[in-house]
Amino acid sequence: MKTMGLKALYLVNPKRFPDEQASARASGALDVLEAATVCQTLDEALQGTALAVAMTARRRDLSPEILTTREAAPRVVEHAFKQQVAVVFGTEMSGLTNAEVGRCQMLASIPANPQYPSLNLAAAVQVMAYELRQGCADFAWSEAPARELAGFEDVERFYQHLERILIETGFLDPEHPKRLMHRLRRLFARTRLEKEEVNILRGILTAVQK
Amino acid sequence: MKTMGLKALYLVNPKRFPDEQASARASGALDVLEAATVCQTLDEALQGTALAVAMTARRRDLSPEILTTREAAPRVVEHAFKQQVAVVFGTEMSGLTNAEVGRCQMLASIPANPQYPSLNLAAAVQVMAYELRQGCADFAWSEAPARELAGFEDVERFYQHLERILIETGFLDPEHPKRLMHRLRRLFARTRLEKEEVNILRGILTAVQK
Repeated sequence: MKTMGLKALYLVNPKRFPDEQASARASGALDVLEAATVCQTLDEALQGTALAVAMTARRRDLSPEILTTREAAPRVVEHAFKQQVAVVFGTEMSGLTNAEVGRCQMLASIPANPQYPSLNLAAAVQVMAYELRQGCADFAWSEAPARELAGFEDVERFYQHLERILIETGFLDPEHPKRLMHRLRRLFARTRLEKEEVNILRGILTAVQK
Repeated sequence: MKTMGLKALYLVNPKRFPDEQASARASGALDVLEAATVCQTLDEALQGTALAVAMTARRRDLSPEILTTREAAPRVVEHAFKQQVAVVFGTEMSGLTNAEVGRCQMLASIPANPQYPSLNLAAAVQVMAYELRQGCADFAWSEAPARELAGFEDVERFYQHLERILIETGFLDPEHPKRLMHRLRRLFARTRLEKEEVNILRGILTAVQK
């Protein structure tokens, strides 16, 4: 992270932290490790962000479009100039769960050898951090300002509101929810909702509720 | 290497090989490690190559132009379709020596945080391997065929021939060679000599000798 100029490390529910071995390996980048924010949940880590990219090595059922790291990085950088963004990595052994991916608005994957596609976590972080730095250098200042995306909390409140309405209307059976909310999250994640759009959607839900 | 589809690993004068710890860490890529070629010198490793890229984190005195990894990768890939190429990494602690860099025709560097620019070796290999894979994907088949570069041995024989002539002519004092050969290597490395050009230069040297 530090070699590529990244500073804000968030650790979700780490097994051990602080950890002697991690500190020893951090070498000249101990400042980044020591300034890490420890969270209990991914939702907590994503508070305040407007765009979160889930890093995944595999295609997922019902997932939004998967971008390559090279495609994703400039988009992340573009928003990072205005709002908080996050790149979300899973555990070394099993990556991100579908529920975790569902919290993110974008999926990105490192193009790799199909016979052996799994980079280890440190390698994947290095590659994405490198692409983000390249993305900053390459960033073409566009005439049109970046859209102001809705914040994570606003979008999550919208999903909760939506789910309540769906249950109230009988469309969603809470005993047998199937994958309905997952599909809806996917749909909205793809659009990357703007602040104003969330207001409109919430307004619609409120109207339906009345 | 394997995640990015690279297979040919050359180890120059390794402290230990094979090594239990390395094998354990290779995980599903043990085939690459076991097929590694062990060489005593860098020259031995570069036999048969036509283009070698030295990876460096720092600007060097009298070095040829340093390309970014993103600039270098497509050029390496272009030649790799026709001739053997190599990417040369130094040791974890001290990188490549100037003499080693002098064996290469191109220098490349990973753009990094100037306050903390040193990636560790594994991270640097991952980034360059990633760029090489991207370079393959992005490679635009040009109408003009890639130039046929001279092989490493031919170019080295030319340098030896040149040095002999310079000594014979009294231009180079073997007791006080200064950095003359280094400068000349730099000059020719920048041009990336073609096979036919080396023949011509050798012809000139032979003519001078007579």
